[in-house]
Amino acid sequence: MTGLPDPPQPHGGNLQAAARRLGCRPDQLLDASASLVPFGPPPRLRRLLHRALGTDLRDYPDREYGGLCGAIAAWHGLDPAMVLPGNGAAELFTWAARDAAACGLSLLPAPGFADYRRALDCWGGAWRTLPLPLDWCGPGPTDWPLAEAAIATAVTTGRPAVLWLTNPHNPTGQLWSRASLQPLLERFALVIVDEAFLPLVPAGEDQSLVPLLPAHPNLVVIRSLTKLFSIAGLRLGYALGGAERLARWATWRDPWPVNGLAAAAGQVLMADQAGLRRWQRRVQHWVAGEGPWLMARLAAVPGLEPLPSAANYLLVRSTPAAVSLQPLRLALERQHRILVRDCRSFEGLGENWLRIAVQSRAGNRRLLGALRRFNRGR
Amino acid sequence: MTGLPDPPQPHGGNLQAAARRLGCRPDQLLDASASLVPFGPPPRLRRLLHRALGTDLRDYPDREYGGLCGAIAAWHGLDPAMVLPGNGAAELFTWAARDAAACGLSLLPAPGFADYRRALDCWGGAWRTLPLPLDWCGPGPTDWPLAEAAIATAVTTGRPAVLWLTNPHNPTGQLWSRASLQPLLERFALVIVDEAFLPLVPAGEDQSLVPLLPAHPNLVVIRSLTKLFSIAGLRLGYALGGAERLARWATWRDPWPVNGLAAAAGQVLMADQAGLRRWQRRVQHWVAGEGPWLMARLAAVPGLEPLPSAANYLLVRSTPAAVSLQPLRLALERQHRILVRDCRSFEGLGENWLRIAVQSRAGNRRLLGALRRFNRGR
Repeated sequence: MTGLPDPPQPHGGNLQAAARRLGCRPDQLLDASASLVPFGPPPRLRRLLHRALGTDLRDYPDREYGGLCGAIAAWHGLDPAMVLPGNGAAELFTWAARDAAACGLSLLPAPGFADYRRALDCWGGAWRTLPLPLDWCGPGPTDWPLAEAAIATAVTTGRPAVLWLTNPHNPTGQLWSRASLQPLLERFALVIVDEAFLPLVPAGEDQSLVPLLPAHPNLVVIRSLTKLFSIAGLRLGYALGGAERLARWATWRDPWPVNGLAAAAGQVLMADQAGLRRWQRRVQHWVAGEGPWLMARLAAVPGLEPLPSAANYLLVRSTPAAVSLQPLRLALERQHRILVRDCRSFEGLGENWLRIAVQSRAGNRRLLGALRRFNRGR
Repeated sequence: MTGLPDPPQPHGGNLQAAARRLGCRPDQLLDASASLVPFGPPPRLRRLLHRALGTDLRDYPDREYGGLCGAIAAWHGLDPAMVLPGNGAAELFTWAARDAAACGLSLLPAPGFADYRRALDCWGGAWRTLPLPLDWCGPGPTDWPLAEAAIATAVTTGRPAVLWLTNPHNPTGQLWSRASLQPLLERFALVIVDEAFLPLVPAGEDQSLVPLLPAHPNLVVIRSLTKLFSIAGLRLGYALGGAERLARWATWRDPWPVNGLAAAAGQVLMADQAGLRRWQRRVQHWVAGEGPWLMARLAAVPGLEPLPSAANYLLVRSTPAAVSLQPLRLALERQHRILVRDCRSFEGLGENWLRIAVQSRAGNRRLLGALRRFNRGR
């Protein structure tokens, strides 16, 4: 191990920073720290963007994002006023958090995505973490594990008003059933559900809370197109929720948050419902195949125990639990140019945990080969 | 006149909405409502973006935006920690307004850019408008017109702590001298200067407050690359200010506000200082030539009085003042597909004012021809 600085990072996907640190090009790295579709972006999207450079570069984006909202609304069977596009899902968490802060105490299942905390802190919103059990059956849909009694035990000060859910959960990959989540809508004044990875999960849409939106104005669903289409650089996500709530968010933020290229390409991709269904089938077929394949082989690596996951990432802990996985993570990075997600910044996890994004078969083999070489070298 | 709805708009450049209203394509419109360089974007930028589609689309942008910050910092001769890139200047006003709201009462010269009010309202920040005199000499740099006594007269309740300046001012085109603005830095706890149009103004950089930044931690300068490069669709701006202040803003907002294409292209454009100087000279040469040319011809149109402007837009009032310019504006739009900026949403202006963005010579001729035909038709 060299003495390079290695602080815990609140997000994966720091490809440029890692490349600078390692003295290589970003494209020489295998990035299993961010959970993107490895065969994206769709070729059609690149063609659309090349065309959009001729037409959507110079002028301000449509301030209403009417075409994009209409296409997203039609895909979900909702009214266009129930759609608000964002500069990635992360921008929308900022505004969701303002509503949450006004409602009262937010509950954040832990371990969980760090950006909800960032967004709540931005508004001085109160929050408590809600420890999630880290053993579950899977990878299929399971019941939301925390009944009211468990919430009361976990949160002894303050009465929670807002629940932030990630389905499938990040970083664990747990998929919670819609039936088990639905009662939470009666319990909380506001429920914010981040379904960023749901379109990638085989049969995942069956558990989406989107069908509950029309009857539940206290529900907001946030989606990302970043993961599904592998366009993290382009930034595109959207919120689905009550028209009044989303119109209020739009008055808070700047007038042109979504760039014109993302808006133009997103509109065409979402409007082509047959093409979108085909792409989603292809992505889910990859998750259904490569996820269990990688899981089985990781389970056979001495010292590693991958947990069941419905999503395109696997949470892995060390066996025995006291062993740190940081030497392994650093060796992967420094000797094999493979990035996996450091879990030290996740509350309830620590140095004996890693999150590994499922890759293409070739990428998964590269990762497994590096793990074997690390074990031989010890 | 038809009975189409025509509410006052808080921003220009609503090309798609206008095209929908008029039943034409956006590229059939001459847009003199948004003030962009008519011969942009630079061909090199399009090439850069086509290349960036291969390298900066899939992965998350560099969360530090290190390369972009470094190039911007080198251009301005500042430390990179004094640079914060934004999703257009408008995104940065949101965070500037949070600091402003915490400081106290904000003063907003009026008429002025509506987005400062939006940003302050987002944080419940208190603000008062400060009426600007609408007669001035020009188009060269003039003195900031409001001495302390004038501020005290205008603002009778509350003690102002924050001043928002636009230099050159929008919508008037007044350019204020650095020497006359500098004393304001002693008077206010926080001064936010929007220099979005300054790089387009001939000799404008001589009046920039950027050289005052190192000695004045209470100064923030916000710049846009949208106008200079005609890339309103791409979204790119930046704030210059104290390192601590900007680091704080970065913790409030989402982790990837600037899309990867904008970051990659912006970095290359700003790092090529010789190319940037050439482009800026070309833009300023156009403003120095077409601005006075259009101004002289507008002054010769019966019923119109353009005010002197240092920028690439002209504020025009009707003579006599009681005459509304709305029939003219609607005729330009509906009969000639020319958009000019409705000024009814600007405090202190009204239906007898328009703002007209300077075009290429061909565009300016098209506009003047339409004005003459309107006058003949009355």
